[in-house]
Amino acid sequence: MRRTCVTVAFLVAGLLRVARAGDVSGAPAELDHGRALRRSIRCGRAHSVILLIGDGLGDSEITSARNYQVGAAGRLRLDTLPFTGALTSYSQQENPPLLPEYVVDSAASATAWATGHKTSNSRLSTTAATDQPLTTILELAQERGLRTGSVTTAELTDATPAALAAHINHRSCEGPADMQACPQYLKANGGRGSIAEQTVDHHVDVVLGGGSDRFNQRIDGGPYSGLTVTQSAIAQGYTLVENAAELEAAVPGRKLLGLFAPGNLTLEWTGERATAYPGSGPQRCVEQQRPNREPSLAAMTHTAIELLAAGDARFFLQVEGASIDKRDHVADPCGQIGETIAFDAAVGVAIDYARRHPDTLIIVTGDHAHTSQIIPAPTQDDHSPGVFSTLITADGAPMTISYATNLPGRKQEHTGTQIRVAAEGPHGADVVGVNDQTALFATMADALGLRRPEPEAGFLPALRRLLGLD
Amino acid sequence: MRRTCVTVAFLVAGLLRVARAGDVSGAPAELDHGRALRRSIRCGRAHSVILLIGDGLGDSEITSARNYQVGAAGRLRLDTLPFTGALTSYSQQENPPLLPEYVVDSAASATAWATGHKTSNSRLSTTAATDQPLTTILELAQERGLRTGSVTTAELTDATPAALAAHINHRSCEGPADMQACPQYLKANGGRGSIAEQTVDHHVDVVLGGGSDRFNQRIDGGPYSGLTVTQSAIAQGYTLVENAAELEAAVPGRKLLGLFAPGNLTLEWTGERATAYPGSGPQRCVEQQRPNREPSLAAMTHTAIELLAAGDARFFLQVEGASIDKRDHVADPCGQIGETIAFDAAVGVAIDYARRHPDTLIIVTGDHAHTSQIIPAPTQDDHSPGVFSTLITADGAPMTISYATNLPGRKQEHTGTQIRVAAEGPHGADVVGVNDQTALFATMADALGLRRPEPEAGFLPALRRLLGLD
Repeated sequence: MRRTCVTVAFLVAGLLRVARAGDVSGAPAELDHGRALRRSIRCGRAHSVILLIGDGLGDSEITSARNYQVGAAGRLRLDTLPFTGALTSYSQQENPPLLPEYVVDSAASATAWATGHKTSNSRLSTTAATDQPLTTILELAQERGLRTGSVTTAELTDATPAALAAHINHRSCEGPADMQACPQYLKANGGRGSIAEQTVDHHVDVVLGGGSDRFNQRIDGGPYSGLTVTQSAIAQGYTLVENAAELEAAVPGRKLLGLFAPGNLTLEWTGERATAYPGSGPQRCVEQQRPNREPSLAAMTHTAIELLAAGDARFFLQVEGASIDKRDHVADPCGQIGETIAFDAAVGVAIDYARRHPDTLIIVTGDHAHTSQIIPAPTQDDHSPGVFSTLITADGAPMTISYATNLPGRKQEHTGTQIRVAAEGPHGADVVGVNDQTALFATMADALGLRRPEPEAGFLPALRRLLGLD
Repeated sequence: MRRTCVTVAFLVAGLLRVARAGDVSGAPAELDHGRALRRSIRCGRAHSVILLIGDGLGDSEITSARNYQVGAAGRLRLDTLPFTGALTSYSQQENPPLLPEYVVDSAASATAWATGHKTSNSRLSTTAATDQPLTTILELAQERGLRTGSVTTAELTDATPAALAAHINHRSCEGPADMQACPQYLKANGGRGSIAEQTVDHHVDVVLGGGSDRFNQRIDGGPYSGLTVTQSAIAQGYTLVENAAELEAAVPGRKLLGLFAPGNLTLEWTGERATAYPGSGPQRCVEQQRPNREPSLAAMTHTAIELLAAGDARFFLQVEGASIDKRDHVADPCGQIGETIAFDAAVGVAIDYARRHPDTLIIVTGDHAHTSQIIPAPTQDDHSPGVFSTLITADGAPMTISYATNLPGRKQEHTGTQIRVAAEGPHGADVVGVNDQTALFATMADALGLRRPEPEAGFLPALRRLLGLD
């Protein structure tokens, strides 16, 4: 049915183009996005889903990156998605009655979009208070035979990728030697093991990022006891790649584990950090600081899609730009913007793929808002009480960025502001309006048909689909 | 043609309801906003436009008001509009080459949505550097014979309402005695006069707000020289109302000037201001602080719509919740949230009107983002370097709001973050995606048919409209 529905839409669109070509009024085109938006609402199920998470990518981070890189009137790739909305992002307190915690961390946030359930900060796909596992979108996709992938610029055991393939009570339990907060999860105690172990044991088809130090820790129980996590991955059928050239040479058919750095991947850009009055800058950032042996997020995204989609397979892929958040925490505007621009390039790879495969649902969002704010130029009497830096943008104008959710020198904080979400493809329209980030789970599950029986039979459902209303 | 198009849409919607009622699968309904969104895309021109501006209403201000008033999982009226997007809000520097200024003020921002043109901060509907007047949406609406209205909780001479009906080089020139920065605009010098004078001379049908002190200043030139601005309004056919009871008794047929306070209207709520560590609170705000003689923004909006729409007349109405911004500037979380909730009630009045008159375009947005941020609970080592307060929300949970774009005790600053916009009705879909706030002018002008000839004749345009694609 999907093909019929799309064909009808194209026929109507073609008719309209003819009709518009016949418009000889000479008047300037009206700005009526309604027609374009209506055409963007796609029929039927998604063949595949690509979810791109900019960690800490609030509206302020998007705006400053845009101003810096393409100017205030320019547009990033992530600006171009047709459907846009806002997501609320609070978490729960750990103890009953599980009141809201208005500032979420990346673990509870990732649990929300990965499972559709709220939990407390630091938890990964387990319930607050009762520590029960919550089924993730990646697990549902695997059950239905879809291929799955997870890509990040952080350690693969960091909160965002971890929530997809691990269930554990604390995000700090990244490798088998890091289990101080999670003794009940030790393999030696009959548990699921650390985040690194669970990630490998989940048989995710493509996992690319940093964190080899975690994977080189030794497993303390179960069938692979005594091996490192990396060795257990190879024993379980993974091909290991450790640099950009090896990644590029990867071929479909085997599971792929890419570990490109001992910890997080190297930053794309560097520059002066923000400082107390009179602030740092004015500055331009130093670009292209990531060594060639480490792939860019765009390159990882490109290869992941190529491997997952081989043979027209259906897939779920998560792509995280992790260090936007990490550089916001340490008041590093160039680091933050460089990672945002690198994330935007990965969004571009996904959009380009969807242009060729329009039955792909793409969702781009942050997991929580963050500290940085664009403020007026400082004066002696009026300036941020925190730290700040002035950058010279692509417009050639000064832009002052302030970091002031915590004292100078302390780790800057997440904020509780609702965040932007954007999408295209089947079910992409679900993100318009105000939703909670748990709704992303439902959107992705519904788009992939993971929660419901196959399309209804019968005349009226068929008519709905024919009219493009299904 | 509009009626035919809407009728077809309702028929299809009815058919779908029948079809869905026949779904006996028992599975939970899919979250597919696509169908609803498609139905929300309305055909044809708008009969009328209501633009609601929350001054300083960034996503952070929306989120904290929601958390406080209805809980994090609750929804404000402004959350319920079907189309959502983001607006960029930078202004221009005053001197060539007119580089961007990344933090806009309310004057340049209002000029942007009112005229479709950028200008420099402090200017009202005049060009940067060259001081030329820019035609406003209100003026276009008047030219086409629409009724016009402007409602605010600030002085009627404050930046947002001023941009619609005044052209002047500086926002401070509010009354005839305030013209220090604008001598060339003095009526005595042959100019257009102050903002108060221009507002009255524009013959806007309904103007409601504060600022009687400005209007009681004496005019220094032209036909009404020697009269106060209020007296000149009466001489030009205005009825003056000065309290809520008089407003309620107003009848259509005459122009209405409502001046309900000497300056800004009284705040709706009060509470402890934010303070430096350890911060103020935990607190609940004190509500209903506006004296009964001063109408609420919702009441002003209700009466304005009633008067403007009388006899099924077409109209353009702007409604401003002005003191969200003003309380953000002074780090007063209860004042800020109370004004946001009052603004939301006015949004509700507009939405309720549009339910009965679905050919109304409603747009709700801020004019710029602002200081306040929701941050984690403070500790001695980790807390905002500015001022902050902890509120107990409707959820019964603590929420800490920080103000730190300027030093404690100094006026907190606007920020340059893109802001939320939401809409419903004809051309409402225009706001989806990322646009500049100047695009609101085009959206409103196109929706009202102020920029183009009447709908095209001929078969194909008619078919487009019949298909609901126009």
